[in-house]
Amino acid sequence: MNLDQLSRQTGEWLKNEGPDVDIVVSSRMRLARNLEAYPFPSRFTPEQRKEAASYLEEVLTHLDDTPPLTYFPLLGLSEVDRLVLVERHLISKEHAEGDAERGVAVSDNESIAIMVNEEDHLRMQVFHSGLRLAEAWNVMNRLDDAISAKVQYAFSPEFGYLSACPTNVGTGLRASVMLHLPALALTGQTESFFRSVNRINLAVRGLYGEGTEAMGNLFQVSNQVSLGKSEEEIIDNLSSAVPQIVLYERKAREHLAERRRDQLEDRVCRALGMLQSARTMNSGETLELLSHVRLGINLGVIQDVEIGVINQLFVQTLPGHLQKLNGKVLDPADRDVHRAKFIREALRGS
Amino acid sequence: MNLDQLSRQTGEWLKNEGPDVDIVVSSRMRLARNLEAYPFPSRFTPEQRKEAASYLEEVLTHLDDTPPLTYFPLLGLSEVDRLVLVERHLISKEHAEGDAERGVAVSDNESIAIMVNEEDHLRMQVFHSGLRLAEAWNVMNRLDDAISAKVQYAFSPEFGYLSACPTNVGTGLRASVMLHLPALALTGQTESFFRSVNRINLAVRGLYGEGTEAMGNLFQVSNQVSLGKSEEEIIDNLSSAVPQIVLYERKAREHLAERRRDQLEDRVCRALGMLQSARTMNSGETLELLSHVRLGINLGVIQDVEIGVINQLFVQTLPGHLQKLNGKVLDPADRDVHRAKFIREALRGS
Repeated sequence: MNLDQLSRQTGEWLKNEGPDVDIVVSSRMRLARNLEAYPFPSRFTPEQRKEAASYLEEVLTHLDDTPPLTYFPLLGLSEVDRLVLVERHLISKEHAEGDAERGVAVSDNESIAIMVNEEDHLRMQVFHSGLRLAEAWNVMNRLDDAISAKVQYAFSPEFGYLSACPTNVGTGLRASVMLHLPALALTGQTESFFRSVNRINLAVRGLYGEGTEAMGNLFQVSNQVSLGKSEEEIIDNLSSAVPQIVLYERKAREHLAERRRDQLEDRVCRALGMLQSARTMNSGETLELLSHVRLGINLGVIQDVEIGVINQLFVQTLPGHLQKLNGKVLDPADRDVHRAKFIREALRGS
Repeated sequence: MNLDQLSRQTGEWLKNEGPDVDIVVSSRMRLARNLEAYPFPSRFTPEQRKEAASYLEEVLTHLDDTPPLTYFPLLGLSEVDRLVLVERHLISKEHAEGDAERGVAVSDNESIAIMVNEEDHLRMQVFHSGLRLAEAWNVMNRLDDAISAKVQYAFSPEFGYLSACPTNVGTGLRASVMLHLPALALTGQTESFFRSVNRINLAVRGLYGEGTEAMGNLFQVSNQVSLGKSEEEIIDNLSSAVPQIVLYERKAREHLAERRRDQLEDRVCRALGMLQSARTMNSGETLELLSHVRLGINLGVIQDVEIGVINQLFVQTLPGHLQKLNGKVLDPADRDVHRAKFIREALRGS
């Protein structure tokens, strides 16, 4: 597995399999863990950082009962390669920006990604396509067991697993789902959705985490805190909220399909027409149009385009992937031209 | 020749033949004439109006040395049929709105159209595709001779041909060209074009005459007055101005094609993509998009669409034609849906 292969494949989170996948694109578990033997990464000496990175690379590439993981050290990776990892949700933006020893261990299908020396020594992620929080948690649990069989975690009988960030102390667990909510957006209900979700102590973020605005009507919904709650409580809280959100989006889709059919078809077909014909297109417009086309496919308005092609385009038209797939660094204006060409060719082939 | 056939054929003014036709869509001559034996139409008694209409119908359908003309009396014509005649530039809006005896005599190829009992007893029009003012004038001259061989015009040795409208007294001639100026619009030069044209005593109007805004970047440029000028002066004045305008538009097109190629291609290809994919579209957007596609064809950016198809769509997507071709009256929302469908099918067949 190398970055070239990675950038061409469909990540687990976009596989379009599993329950309610037309709305719940993917489910994710993230666990923060630290080693007892080292200070938190922000307090590392250069030697400790290097030593911890080597140690963890060795551990993660030799786990028992775990799909084989490929370790990518970030030192020496180009900006484009780092962007590719961020765009695939395998590492955080902050992790990409650091220049000291750090890395990420990734399973071949990208359902497991473990950041080394980010804010914590270990940030473990498990992805599943569709609404499969319980399954993702089971995989995470086994992964946690496999790692803890090899290393000694920093753990306090009083607080639980220790973490560099107070919101992660306790179970260190963040559970989240990536939702595609185009009908709520088209019917002007996004704001009220935000308010409802915050009221039940869940956080909403855009496609690429905190501070990023909603792109392509894709939203991440996750628990806010992990301290004082058990893993089961965290997962149950999210698991019981998601079907409600799914129901709202589904009702909005039905409303559009039944009461505003002409406008829906127009919006969706124009979006596809734009993607098939534009000669230059920026990321924001691309995500917006892909969102409409995805809705159109899911509602049966568009029948001759595979949803897999659209899901792939959500990632492969982002700046990092676009440059990686073109094999060269491009300035923004060139990127927009290449992006439009890439989309036209992908849709022609579909 | 009936209105059904008329609505399906390509009018002379959209034939896309003749010099500079990529910019000068058509050339038009219009002559106002009145009969000595009757007062101007605004002063008709009901009996005189009826009598004059019958008399002129008889005259116009039996002219010598003139292509055969079909006479359409407007009384009894539906609103849709009247709209069709207006949209084809065969009658004026004012003519369409009247309810007393009036009509229009039209040649099979629509190069000749003579309104009876509009503001004047006779409003004769000759159309030619492309920049062919002299040819249009020759046809008009022969038509005028053929009519004056049968009727006695109202003529004053002092003022020339008398007309109900002071701006038409004298020769009664209005010469005009229909220009397609999308590159001036895309480069923001439309305003300065308007000012220059007014400075040399020419008038600029939109696609459908005075008071209508520029639709589809189509503009009519004509002489302002006919009193005190000979026919030759009027035609020379316009004939010498048009090549300048053509030059400006051509330079703007070259600028777009050479310096802003990416944006030009994007604009043009998106326009075509929109027309091919939209499910509902109003007249204004349609004309704007057709204008870009026409530019794209003329600049070689679009190669698989016939310009004839686009020219036809300029007229056949207008409300009257759309309803005529669908064989039923449609409300605006339905029209927009039918228009989009009509365009998709026309482009698929091209």
